[in-house]
Amino acid sequence: MDTRPIGIFDSGVGGLTVFKELHALMPHEDFIYFGDTGRVPYGTRSRETILKYASEDMAFLLSHGVKMVVAACGTASAVLTNKETDRLPVPYTGVIIPSAQAAAVATSTGNVGVIGTPATVRSGAYGRAMRNVRSDIKVTGHACPLFVPLVEAGMFEEGNPVARELAKIYLSPFLGSTVDTLILGCTHYPMLAGLIGKMLGPGIRLINPGAETARYTLNHLMARGMLQDPAHQGISRYYCTDSPEGFAEVAEKFFGSFDASQVTRVELEELSALSKEEAP
Amino acid sequence: MDTRPIGIFDSGVGGLTVFKELHALMPHEDFIYFGDTGRVPYGTRSRETILKYASEDMAFLLSHGVKMVVAACGTASAVLTNKETDRLPVPYTGVIIPSAQAAAVATSTGNVGVIGTPATVRSGAYGRAMRNVRSDIKVTGHACPLFVPLVEAGMFEEGNPVARELAKIYLSPFLGSTVDTLILGCTHYPMLAGLIGKMLGPGIRLINPGAETARYTLNHLMARGMLQDPAHQGISRYYCTDSPEGFAEVAEKFFGSFDASQVTRVELEELSALSKEEAP
Repeated sequence: MDTRPIGIFDSGVGGLTVFKELHALMPHEDFIYFGDTGRVPYGTRSRETILKYASEDMAFLLSHGVKMVVAACGTASAVLTNKETDRLPVPYTGVIIPSAQAAAVATSTGNVGVIGTPATVRSGAYGRAMRNVRSDIKVTGHACPLFVPLVEAGMFEEGNPVARELAKIYLSPFLGSTVDTLILGCTHYPMLAGLIGKMLGPGIRLINPGAETARYTLNHLMARGMLQDPAHQGISRYYCTDSPEGFAEVAEKFFGSFDASQVTRVELEELSALSKEEAP
Repeated sequence: MDTRPIGIFDSGVGGLTVFKELHALMPHEDFIYFGDTGRVPYGTRSRETILKYASEDMAFLLSHGVKMVVAACGTASAVLTNKETDRLPVPYTGVIIPSAQAAAVATSTGNVGVIGTPATVRSGAYGRAMRNVRSDIKVTGHACPLFVPLVEAGMFEEGNPVARELAKIYLSPFLGSTVDTLILGCTHYPMLAGLIGKMLGPGIRLINPGAETARYTLNHLMARGMLQDPAHQGISRYYCTDSPEGFAEVAEKFFGSFDASQVTRVELEELSALSKEEAP
Protein backbone atom coordinates (compact mmCIF):
# COMPACT_ATOMS: atom_id res chain seq x y z
CA MET A 1 0.00 0.00 0.00
CA ASP A 2 1.22 3.48 -0.84
CA THR A 3 -0.72 6.46 0.49
CA ARG A 4 1.11 9.11 -1.55
CA PRO A 5 -0.84 10.98 -4.27
CA ILE A 6 -0.56 10.38 -8.02
CA GLY A 7 0.84 13.42 -9.85
CA ILE A 8 -0.59 14.50 -13.21
CA PHE A 9 0.63 17.38 -15.34
CA ASP A 10 -0.51 19.01 -18.55
CA SER A 11 0.17 22.21 -20.47
CA GLY A 12 -3.25 23.40 -19.30
CA VAL A 13 -6.71 22.01 -18.87
CA GLY A 14 -6.78 19.33 -21.62
CA GLY A 15 -5.18 16.78 -19.31
CA LEU A 16 -8.35 16.81 -17.23
CA THR A 17 -9.75 14.31 -19.77
CA VAL A 18 -7.00 11.94 -18.54
CA PHE A 19 -7.54 12.87 -14.89
CA LYS A 20 -11.25 12.09 -15.28
CA GLU A 21 -10.48 8.54 -16.45
CA LEU A 22 -7.84 8.01 -13.75
CA HIS A 23 -10.22 9.21 -11.06
CA ALA A 24 -13.09 7.03 -12.32
CA LEU A 25 -10.84 3.96 -12.29
CA MET A 26 -9.12 4.73 -8.96
CA PRO A 27 -11.54 6.69 -6.74
CA HIS A 28 -9.51 5.78 -3.62
CA GLU A 29 -6.39 7.54 -4.85
CA ASP A 30 -5.37 11.11 -4.02
CA PHE A 31 -4.40 13.19 -7.05
CA ILE A 32 -2.36 16.33 -7.65
CA TYR A 33 -3.15 17.92 -11.01
CA PHE A 34 -0.80 20.60 -12.33
CA GLY A 35 -1.81 22.64 -15.42
CA ASP A 36 0.67 25.17 -16.84
CA THR A 37 -2.12 27.56 -17.88
CA GLY A 38 0.29 30.54 -17.80
CA ARG A 39 2.19 29.02 -20.76
CA VAL A 40 -0.38 26.84 -22.56
CA PRO A 41 -0.27 25.71 -25.40
CA TYR A 42 2.89 23.58 -25.65
CA GLY A 43 2.19 21.91 -29.00
CA THR A 44 3.18 24.84 -31.23
CA ARG A 45 6.47 25.53 -29.37
CA SER A 46 9.96 24.18 -30.03
CA ARG A 47 11.26 20.89 -28.64
CA GLU A 48 13.75 22.58 -26.26
CA THR A 49 11.09 24.87 -24.82
CA ILE A 50 8.65 21.99 -24.29
CA LEU A 51 11.37 19.92 -22.57
CA LYS A 52 12.19 22.83 -20.26
CA TYR A 53 8.56 23.46 -19.31
CA ALA A 54 7.83 19.75 -18.80
CA SER A 55 10.89 19.36 -16.52
CA GLU A 56 9.64 22.24 -14.38
CA ASP A 57 6.16 20.72 -14.22
CA MET A 58 7.56 17.35 -13.09
CA ALA A 59 9.78 19.03 -10.47
CA PHE A 60 6.66 20.67 -9.06
CA LEU A 61 4.86 17.31 -8.73
CA LEU A 62 7.91 15.70 -7.12
CA SER A 63 8.11 18.54 -4.58
CA HIS A 64 4.60 17.42 -3.51
CA GLY A 65 5.73 13.85 -2.80
CA VAL A 66 3.86 12.04 -5.59
CA LYS A 67 4.29 8.26 -6.02
CA MET A 68 3.98 8.34 -9.82
CA VAL A 69 4.14 11.01 -12.53
CA VAL A 70 1.58 10.95 -15.37
CA ALA A 71 2.23 13.28 -18.31
CA ALA A 72 -1.40 13.92 -19.32
CA CYS A 73 -0.21 16.02 -22.25
CA GLY A 74 0.33 14.49 -25.69
CA THR A 75 3.00 17.03 -26.57
CA ALA A 76 5.08 16.62 -23.39
CA SER A 77 4.72 12.81 -23.63
CA ALA A 78 5.97 12.89 -27.22
CA VAL A 79 8.97 15.09 -26.52
CA LEU A 80 10.17 13.57 -23.21
CA THR A 81 12.56 10.65 -23.75
CA ASN A 82 13.90 7.93 -21.44
CA LYS A 83 16.87 10.22 -20.82
CA GLU A 84 14.61 12.57 -18.86
CA THR A 85 12.06 10.15 -17.41
CA ASP A 86 14.51 7.42 -16.23
CA ARG A 87 16.04 10.02 -13.92
CA LEU A 88 12.79 10.49 -12.01
CA PRO A 89 12.79 8.92 -8.50
CA VAL A 90 9.22 7.55 -9.08
CA PRO A 91 7.52 5.62 -11.91
CA TYR A 92 6.44 7.62 -14.95
CA THR A 93 4.03 7.26 -17.83
CA GLY A 94 3.04 9.53 -20.64
CA VAL A 95 0.03 8.98 -22.89
CA ILE A 96 2.06 7.64 -25.84
CA ILE A 97 2.93 4.08 -24.79
CA PRO A 98 -0.55 3.17 -23.47
CA SER A 99 -2.29 4.62 -26.56
CA ALA A 100 0.22 3.13 -28.99
CA GLN A 101 -0.15 -0.34 -27.45
CA ALA A 102 -3.93 -0.13 -27.69
CA ALA A 103 -3.78 1.03 -31.31
CA ALA A 104 -1.26 -1.62 -32.37
CA VAL A 105 -3.58 -4.31 -30.96
CA ALA A 106 -6.76 -2.75 -32.40
CA THR A 107 -5.67 -2.28 -36.03
CA SER A 108 -6.36 -4.98 -38.63
CA THR A 109 -4.82 -3.26 -41.65
CA GLY A 110 -1.73 -2.12 -39.71
CA ASN A 111 -2.39 1.41 -40.95
CA VAL A 112 -2.87 3.70 -37.99
CA GLY A 113 -3.65 7.41 -38.10
CA VAL A 114 -2.25 9.83 -35.54
CA ILE A 115 -3.56 13.34 -34.99
CA GLY A 116 -1.82 15.64 -32.55
CA THR A 117 -0.10 18.98 -32.10
CA PRO A 118 2.70 19.93 -34.53
CA ALA A 119 5.33 18.98 -31.91
CA THR A 120 3.73 15.56 -31.31
CA VAL A 121 3.42 14.65 -34.98
CA ARG A 122 6.96 15.93 -35.71
CA SER A 123 8.36 13.72 -32.92
CA GLY A 124 7.24 10.43 -34.54
CA ALA A 125 6.86 9.04 -30.99
CA TYR A 126 3.58 7.15 -31.61
CA GLY A 127 5.03 5.32 -34.62
CA ARG A 128 8.14 4.23 -32.71
CA ALA A 129 6.04 3.00 -29.78
CA MET A 130 3.66 1.05 -32.05
CA ARG A 131 6.50 -0.60 -33.99
CA ASN A 132 7.83 -1.95 -30.67
CA VAL A 133 4.60 -3.98 -30.49
CA ARG A 134 4.13 -4.75 -34.19
CA SER A 135 6.83 -4.03 -36.72
CA ASP A 136 4.62 -3.65 -39.82
CA ILE A 137 2.64 -0.66 -38.53
CA LYS A 138 2.33 2.22 -40.99
CA VAL A 139 1.52 5.65 -39.60
CA THR A 140 -0.38 8.49 -41.27
CA GLY A 141 0.24 11.50 -39.03
CA HIS A 142 -1.48 14.86 -39.30
CA ALA A 143 -0.88 17.96 -37.16
CA CYS A 144 -4.01 19.81 -36.02
CA PRO A 145 -2.68 23.00 -34.37
CA LEU A 146 -6.11 24.66 -34.09
CA PHE A 147 -7.93 21.82 -32.30
CA VAL A 148 -6.50 22.85 -28.89
CA PRO A 149 -7.64 26.51 -28.96
CA LEU A 150 -10.94 25.34 -30.52
CA VAL A 151 -11.63 23.04 -27.57
CA GLU A 152 -10.47 25.66 -25.04
CA ALA A 153 -12.93 28.10 -26.66
CA GLY A 154 -15.71 25.56 -26.04
CA MET A 155 -16.38 24.94 -29.75
CA PHE A 156 -16.47 21.14 -29.65
CA GLU A 157 -20.14 20.30 -30.19
CA GLU A 158 -20.87 18.18 -33.27
CA GLY A 159 -23.01 20.91 -34.84
CA ASN A 160 -20.47 23.73 -34.56
CA PRO A 161 -19.74 24.94 -38.13
CA VAL A 162 -16.17 26.05 -37.32
CA ALA A 163 -15.34 22.69 -35.75
CA ARG A 164 -16.88 20.93 -38.74
CA GLU A 165 -14.93 22.91 -41.37
CA LEU A 166 -11.70 22.46 -39.41
CA ALA A 167 -12.31 18.73 -38.96
CA LYS A 168 -12.94 18.39 -42.70
CA ILE A 169 -9.46 19.81 -43.39
CA TYR A 170 -7.63 17.97 -40.61
CA LEU A 171 -9.29 14.57 -41.17
CA SER A 172 -9.03 14.56 -44.97
CA PRO A 173 -5.88 12.35 -45.01
CA PHE A 174 -7.85 9.53 -43.34
CA LEU A 175 -11.04 9.58 -45.40
CA GLY A 176 -10.98 6.90 -48.07
CA SER A 177 -7.62 5.59 -46.77
CA THR A 178 -6.81 2.14 -45.36
CA VAL A 179 -6.41 3.60 -41.87
CA ASP A 180 -8.74 1.65 -39.53
CA THR A 181 -7.58 3.09 -36.19
CA LEU A 182 -7.00 6.71 -35.23
CA ILE A 183 -5.09 7.82 -32.13
CA LEU A 184 -6.48 11.04 -30.64
CA GLY A 185 -2.90 12.02 -29.83
CA CYS A 186 -3.61 15.10 -27.72
CA THR A 187 -5.54 15.07 -24.48
CA HIS A 188 -7.85 17.86 -25.67
CA TYR A 189 -9.13 15.79 -28.59
CA PRO A 190 -11.45 13.40 -26.73
CA MET A 191 -13.73 16.44 -26.35
CA LEU A 192 -14.06 16.32 -30.17
CA ALA A 193 -14.55 12.54 -30.34
CA GLY A 194 -18.26 12.86 -31.20
CA LEU A 195 -17.61 15.04 -34.24
CA ILE A 196 -14.53 13.09 -35.36
CA GLY A 197 -16.32 9.74 -35.00
CA LYS A 198 -19.27 10.96 -37.05
CA MET A 199 -17.05 12.37 -39.78
CA LEU A 200 -14.86 9.25 -40.11
CA GLY A 201 -17.68 6.73 -39.69
CA PRO A 202 -17.72 3.35 -37.89
CA GLY A 203 -14.88 1.90 -40.02
CA ILE A 204 -12.24 3.83 -38.05
CA ARG A 205 -11.78 3.09 -34.37
CA LEU A 206 -10.77 6.01 -32.14
CA ILE A 207 -8.18 5.54 -29.40
CA ASN A 208 -8.71 7.83 -26.38
CA PRO A 209 -5.39 8.46 -24.62
CA GLY A 210 -7.11 9.17 -21.29
CA ALA A 211 -8.82 5.79 -20.98
CA GLU A 212 -5.71 3.87 -22.08
CA THR A 213 -3.39 5.80 -19.78
CA ALA A 214 -5.70 5.28 -16.79
CA ARG A 215 -5.70 1.50 -17.33
CA TYR A 216 -1.91 1.50 -17.75
CA THR A 217 -1.41 3.49 -14.54
CA LEU A 218 -3.70 1.20 -12.57
CA ASN A 219 -1.83 -1.90 -13.80
CA HIS A 220 1.51 -0.35 -13.02
CA LEU A 221 0.62 0.61 -9.44
CA MET A 222 -1.15 -2.70 -8.80
CA ALA A 223 1.81 -4.77 -10.01
CA ARG A 224 4.10 -2.90 -7.60
CA GLY A 225 1.73 -2.97 -4.60
CA MET A 226 1.53 0.82 -4.76
CA LEU A 227 -2.26 1.32 -4.69
CA GLN A 228 -3.93 3.32 -1.93
CA ASP A 229 -6.01 1.77 0.88
CA PRO A 230 -9.38 0.87 -0.74
CA ALA A 231 -11.17 2.27 2.35
CA HIS A 232 -9.65 5.70 1.67
CA GLN A 233 -11.78 8.41 0.07
CA GLY A 234 -9.56 10.07 -2.54
CA ILE A 235 -8.87 13.82 -2.48
CA SER A 236 -7.80 15.84 -5.54
CA ARG A 237 -5.88 19.10 -5.53
CA TYR A 238 -5.32 21.35 -8.56
CA TYR A 239 -2.50 23.80 -9.29
CA CYS A 240 -2.00 26.14 -12.23
CA THR A 241 0.21 29.03 -13.36
CA ASP A 242 -2.51 31.53 -14.28
CA SER A 243 -5.69 32.52 -12.43
CA PRO A 244 -7.64 29.74 -10.70
CA GLU A 245 -10.84 31.33 -12.08
CA GLY A 246 -9.64 30.91 -15.68
CA PHE A 247 -8.75 27.27 -14.98
CA ALA A 248 -12.18 26.63 -13.48
CA GLU A 249 -13.89 28.36 -16.41
CA VAL A 250 -12.38 26.00 -18.99
CA ALA A 251 -12.77 23.00 -16.67
CA GLU A 252 -16.46 23.85 -16.44
CA LYS A 253 -16.80 23.75 -20.23
CA PHE A 254 -15.38 20.22 -20.03
CA PHE A 255 -17.19 18.84 -16.99
CA GLY A 256 -20.29 20.94 -16.47
CA SER A 257 -19.31 22.28 -13.06
CA PHE A 258 -16.02 22.98 -11.32
CA ASP A 259 -15.21 24.91 -8.15
CA ALA A 260 -12.39 27.50 -8.53
CA SER A 261 -11.68 27.38 -4.77
CA GLN A 262 -10.09 23.92 -5.24
CA VAL A 263 -7.37 25.46 -7.44
CA THR A 264 -4.12 27.09 -6.24
CA ARG A 265 -1.93 29.40 -8.30
CA VAL A 266 1.83 28.74 -8.62
CA GLU A 267 4.30 31.40 -9.83
CA LEU A 268 6.65 30.61 -12.74
CA GLU A 269 9.68 31.73 -10.67
CA GLU A 270 8.76 29.13 -8.05
CA LEU A 271 8.60 26.43 -10.74
CA SER A 272 11.92 27.41 -12.21
CA ALA A 273 13.60 27.38 -8.74
CA LEU A 274 12.16 23.91 -7.95
CA SER A 275 13.38 22.59 -11.26
CA LYS A 276 16.94 23.68 -10.42
CA GLU A 277 16.79 21.96 -7.01
CA GLU A 278 15.47 18.70 -8.46
CA ALA A 279 17.99 18.56 -11.30
CA PRO A 280 20.52 15.77 -10.73
CA MET B 1 18.26 63.98 -33.08
CA ASP B 2 18.21 60.74 -31.11
CA THR B 3 20.15 57.76 -32.45
CA ARG B 4 18.74 55.19 -29.99
CA PRO B 5 16.48 52.44 -31.35
CA ILE B 6 12.69 52.28 -30.99
CA GLY B 7 11.57 49.30 -28.90
CA ILE B 8 8.52 47.25 -29.88
CA PHE B 9 7.08 44.32 -27.98
CA ASP B 10 4.28 41.86 -28.57
CA SER B 11 3.10 38.53 -27.12
CA GLY B 12 4.44 36.92 -30.28
CA VAL B 13 4.54 37.58 -33.98
CA GLY B 14 1.28 39.55 -34.45
CA GLY B 15 3.00 42.82 -33.54
CA LEU B 16 5.00 42.53 -36.76
CA THR B 17 1.96 44.09 -38.49
CA VAL B 18 2.69 47.21 -36.37
CA PHE B 19 6.45 46.97 -36.92
CA LYS B 20 5.86 46.82 -40.68
CA GLU B 21 3.95 50.13 -40.60
CA LEU B 22 6.52 51.77 -38.29
CA HIS B 23 9.36 50.66 -40.51
CA ALA B 24 7.64 51.86 -43.69
CA LEU B 25 7.02 55.29 -42.15
CA MET B 26 10.47 55.64 -40.49
CA PRO B 27 13.04 53.71 -42.56
CA HIS B 28 15.90 55.65 -40.94
CA GLU B 29 15.11 54.38 -37.47
CA ASP B 30 16.71 51.39 -35.76
CA PHE B 31 14.20 48.97 -34.22
CA ILE B 32 14.32 46.30 -31.55
CA TYR B 33 11.39 43.90 -31.79
CA PHE B 34 10.69 41.58 -28.87
CA GLY B 35 8.10 38.76 -29.26
CA ASP B 36 7.28 36.59 -26.23
CA THR B 37 6.76 33.48 -28.39
CA GLY B 38 7.52 31.19 -25.41
CA ARG B 39 4.32 32.41 -23.71
CA VAL B 40 2.06 33.56 -26.59
CA PRO B 41 -0.96 34.09 -26.53
CA TYR B 42 -1.63 36.76 -23.88
CA GLY B 43 -5.28 37.49 -24.73
CA THR B 44 -6.81 34.45 -23.03
CA ARG B 45 -4.81 34.88 -19.79
CA SER B 46 -5.71 36.77 -16.62
CA ARG B 47 -5.05 40.50 -16.11
CA GLU B 48 -2.32 39.89 -13.46
CA THR B 49 -0.46 37.44 -15.65
CA ILE B 50 -0.59 39.77 -18.68
CA LEU B 51 0.69 42.70 -16.55
CA LYS B 52 3.57 40.59 -15.26
CA TYR B 53 4.58 39.38 -18.74
CA ALA B 54 4.28 42.89 -20.25
CA SER B 55 6.44 44.39 -17.47
CA GLU B 56 9.13 41.83 -18.21
CA ASP B 57 8.93 42.56 -21.94
CA MET B 58 9.34 46.31 -21.35
CA ALA B 59 12.27 45.73 -18.97
CA PHE B 60 13.97 43.80 -21.77
CA LEU B 61 13.54 46.68 -24.23
CA LEU B 62 14.80 49.21 -21.66
CA SER B 63 17.89 47.08 -21.04
CA HIS B 64 18.66 47.61 -24.75
CA GLY B 65 18.58 51.41 -24.41
CA VAL B 66 15.47 52.15 -26.48
CA LYS B 67 14.24 55.76 -26.81
CA MET B 68 10.54 54.83 -26.88
CA VAL B 69 8.46 51.75 -26.02
CA VAL B 70 5.67 50.67 -28.38
CA ALA B 71 3.29 47.96 -27.10
CA ALA B 72 2.42 46.36 -30.45
CA CYS B 73 0.00 44.00 -28.68
CA GLY B 74 -3.67 44.86 -28.29
CA THR B 75 -3.95 42.82 -25.10
CA ALA B 76 -0.91 44.33 -23.33
CA SER B 77 -1.98 47.83 -24.47
CA ALA B 78 -5.46 47.27 -23.03
CA VAL B 79 -4.26 45.96 -19.69
CA LEU B 80 -1.34 48.36 -19.02
CA THR B 81 -2.48 51.54 -17.26
CA ASN B 82 -0.79 54.90 -16.64
CA LYS B 83 0.34 53.50 -13.30
CA GLU B 84 2.73 51.18 -15.13
CA THR B 85 3.61 53.24 -18.19
CA ASP B 86 4.19 56.62 -16.45
CA ARG B 87 7.02 54.95 -14.53
CA LEU B 88 8.94 54.20 -17.72
CA PRO B 89 12.02 56.43 -18.26
CA VAL B 90 11.14 56.87 -21.98
CA PRO B 91 7.93 57.74 -23.87
CA TYR B 92 5.38 54.96 -24.35
CA THR B 93 2.48 54.19 -26.63
CA GLY B 94 0.21 51.21 -26.97
CA VAL B 95 -2.13 50.61 -29.90
CA ILE B 96 -5.30 51.70 -28.03
CA ILE B 97 -5.02 55.52 -27.98
CA PRO B 98 -3.95 55.90 -31.64
CA SER B 99 -6.68 53.50 -32.87
CA ALA B 100 -9.36 54.95 -30.59
CA GLN B 101 -8.60 58.51 -31.75
CA ALA B 102 -8.81 57.44 -35.40
CA ALA B 103 -12.11 55.61 -34.79
CA ALA B 104 -13.70 58.48 -32.83
CA VAL B 105 -12.91 60.82 -35.72
CA ALA B 106 -14.02 58.35 -38.43
CA THR B 107 -17.45 57.38 -37.07
CA SER B 108 -20.60 59.27 -38.15
CA THR B 109 -23.16 57.33 -36.11
CA GLY B 110 -21.00 57.30 -32.97
CA ASN B 111 -21.45 53.53 -32.82
CA VAL B 112 -18.04 51.86 -32.98
CA GLY B 113 -17.34 48.15 -32.96
CA VAL B 114 -14.30 46.67 -31.23
CA ILE B 115 -13.04 43.15 -31.81
CA GLY B 116 -10.13 41.84 -29.77
CA THR B 117 -8.96 39.12 -27.41
CA PRO B 118 -11.11 38.33 -24.34
CA ALA B 119 -8.72 40.34 -22.12
CA THR B 120 -8.89 43.38 -24.43
CA VAL B 121 -12.67 43.41 -24.72
CA ARG B 122 -13.07 42.80 -20.95
CA SER B 123 -10.81 45.80 -20.20
CA GLY B 124 -13.10 48.35 -21.89
CA ALA B 125 -9.95 50.34 -22.76
CA TYR B 126 -11.00 51.30 -26.31
CA GLY B 127 -14.33 52.73 -25.10
CA ARG B 128 -12.65 54.84 -22.41
CA ALA B 129 -10.09 56.18 -24.88
CA MET B 130 -12.75 57.05 -27.48
CA ARG B 131 -14.98 58.83 -24.95
CA ASN B 132 -12.01 61.09 -24.12
CA VAL B 133 -12.30 62.36 -27.69
CA ARG B 134 -16.10 62.22 -28.11
CA SER B 135 -18.40 61.62 -25.16
CA ASP B 136 -21.35 60.11 -27.09
CA ILE B 137 -19.46 57.10 -28.46
CA LYS B 138 -21.24 53.77 -28.03
CA VAL B 139 -19.14 50.62 -28.19
CA THR B 140 -20.17 47.15 -29.35
CA GLY B 141 -17.33 44.89 -28.24
CA HIS B 142 -16.88 41.26 -29.21
CA ALA B 143 -14.13 38.88 -28.10
CA CYS B 144 -12.63 36.68 -30.83
CA PRO B 145 -10.33 34.25 -28.97
CA LEU B 146 -9.73 31.99 -31.98
CA PHE B 147 -8.60 34.68 -34.45
CA VAL B 148 -5.04 34.73 -33.03
CA PRO B 149 -4.34 30.98 -33.38
CA LEU B 150 -6.15 31.04 -36.75
CA VAL B 151 -3.76 33.71 -38.07
CA GLU B 152 -0.72 31.99 -36.54
CA ALA B 153 -1.79 28.81 -38.35
CA GLY B 154 -1.77 30.76 -41.62
CA MET B 155 -5.54 30.42 -42.21
CA PHE B 156 -6.24 34.05 -43.07
CA GLU B 157 -7.00 33.96 -46.80
CA GLU B 158 -10.47 35.17 -47.78
CA GLY B 159 -11.44 31.78 -49.21
CA ASN B 160 -10.53 29.68 -46.16
CA PRO B 161 -13.73 27.93 -44.99
CA VAL B 162 -12.68 27.82 -41.33
CA ALA B 163 -11.85 31.55 -41.30
CA ARG B 164 -15.17 32.25 -43.02
CA GLU B 165 -17.30 30.24 -40.54
CA LEU B 166 -15.46 31.77 -37.61
CA ALA B 167 -15.81 35.31 -38.99
CA LYS B 168 -19.56 34.71 -39.47
CA ILE B 169 -19.89 33.96 -35.75
CA TYR B 170 -17.56 36.69 -34.51
CA LEU B 171 -18.86 39.45 -36.79
CA SER B 172 -22.59 38.72 -36.34
CA PRO B 173 -23.07 41.50 -33.71
CA PHE B 174 -22.04 44.12 -36.32
CA LEU B 175 -24.08 42.96 -39.31
CA GLY B 176 -27.30 44.96 -39.65
CA SER B 177 -26.28 47.21 -36.72
CA THR B 178 -25.64 50.98 -36.73
CA VAL B 179 -21.89 50.39 -36.23
CA ASP B 180 -20.07 52.22 -39.04
CA THR B 181 -16.47 51.82 -37.80
CA LEU B 182 -14.73 48.68 -36.53
CA ILE B 183 -11.45 48.69 -34.62
CA LEU B 184 -9.30 45.63 -35.37
CA GLY B 185 -8.26 45.65 -31.73
CA CYS B 186 -5.57 42.98 -31.89
CA THR B 187 -2.42 43.27 -33.97
CA HIS B 188 -3.00 39.86 -35.57
CA TYR B 189 -6.30 40.96 -37.07
CA PRO B 190 -5.03 43.12 -39.96
CA MET B 191 -4.03 39.80 -41.57
CA LEU B 192 -7.79 39.04 -41.70
CA ALA B 193 -8.77 42.53 -42.98
CA GLY B 194 -9.58 41.24 -46.49
CA LEU B 195 -12.07 38.67 -45.23
CA ILE B 196 -13.55 40.95 -42.54
CA GLY B 197 -13.94 43.84 -45.01
CA LYS B 198 -15.70 41.63 -47.53
CA MET B 199 -18.05 40.18 -44.93
CA LEU B 200 -19.02 43.55 -43.42
CA GLY B 201 -19.20 45.45 -46.72
CA PRO B 202 -18.17 49.02 -47.57
CA GLY B 203 -20.52 50.58 -44.97
CA ILE B 204 -18.17 49.71 -42.10
CA ARG B 205 -14.73 51.30 -42.00
CA LEU B 206 -11.92 49.20 -40.54
CA ILE B 207 -9.31 50.77 -38.24
CA ASN B 208 -5.87 49.10 -38.47
CA PRO B 209 -3.99 49.58 -35.20
CA GLY B 210 -0.60 49.25 -36.91
CA ALA B 211 -1.04 52.16 -39.31
CA GLU B 212 -2.50 54.44 -36.61
CA THR B 213 0.18 53.57 -34.07
CA ALA B 214 2.96 54.20 -36.59
CA ARG B 215 1.63 57.70 -37.35
CA TYR B 216 1.26 58.43 -33.62
CA THR B 217 4.82 57.30 -32.90
CA LEU B 218 6.23 59.40 -35.74
CA ASN B 219 4.37 62.50 -34.48
CA HIS B 220 5.50 61.89 -30.93
CA LEU B 221 9.19 61.54 -31.81
CA MET B 222 9.09 64.45 -34.27
CA ALA B 223 7.48 66.81 -31.74
CA ARG B 224 10.27 66.04 -29.25
CA GLY B 225 13.13 66.22 -31.76
CA MET B 226 13.81 62.54 -31.15
CA LEU B 227 13.95 61.25 -34.75
CA GLN B 228 17.06 59.56 -36.12
CA ASP B 229 19.47 61.20 -38.62
CA PRO B 230 17.65 60.95 -42.01
CA ALA B 231 20.95 59.89 -43.62
CA HIS B 232 21.03 56.80 -41.40
CA GLN B 233 20.05 53.43 -42.81
CA GLY B 234 17.87 51.77 -40.17
CA ILE B 235 18.74 48.36 -38.71
CA SER B 236 16.23 46.02 -37.07
CA ARG B 237 16.96 43.33 -34.51
CA TYR B 238 14.50 40.67 -33.32
CA TYR B 239 14.34 38.79 -30.02
CA CYS B 240 11.97 36.05 -28.88
CA THR B 241 11.52 33.54 -26.05
CA ASP B 242 11.13 30.38 -28.15
CA SER B 243 13.12 29.11 -31.13
CA PRO B 244 14.19 31.72 -33.73
CA GLU B 245 13.17 29.22 -36.45
CA GLY B 246 9.57 29.13 -35.17
CA PHE B 247 9.47 32.94 -35.10
CA ALA B 248 10.77 33.13 -38.67
CA GLU B 249 8.27 30.49 -39.82
CA VAL B 250 5.23 32.52 -38.67
CA ALA B 251 6.85 35.79 -39.81
CA GLU B 252 7.22 34.23 -43.25
CA LYS B 253 3.50 33.45 -43.39
CA PHE B 254 2.92 37.18 -42.75
CA PHE B 255 5.58 38.73 -44.97
CA GLY B 256 6.53 36.15 -47.61
CA SER B 257 10.17 35.81 -46.52
CA PHE B 258 12.04 36.23 -43.27
CA ASP B 259 15.56 35.22 -42.25
CA ALA B 260 15.77 33.28 -38.94
CA SER B 261 19.41 34.34 -38.49
CA GLN B 262 18.24 37.87 -37.64
CA VAL B 263 16.45 36.54 -34.54
CA THR B 264 18.01 35.94 -31.09
CA ARG B 265 16.53 33.77 -28.36
CA VAL B 266 16.11 35.15 -24.81
CA GLU B 267 15.52 32.89 -21.77
CA LEU B 268 12.54 33.54 -19.49
CA GLU B 269 14.82 33.56 -16.41
CA GLU B 270 16.82 36.38 -18.00
CA LEU B 271 13.61 38.37 -18.55
CA SER B 272 12.42 37.84 -15.02
CA ALA B 273 15.81 38.96 -13.59
CA LEU B 274 15.82 42.11 -15.77
CA SER B 275 12.31 42.94 -14.66
CA LYS B 276 13.40 42.83 -11.01
CA GLU B 277 16.36 45.16 -11.72
CA GLU B 278 14.23 47.69 -13.59
CA ALA B 279 11.44 47.76 -11.01
CA PRO B 280 11.38 51.06 -9.10
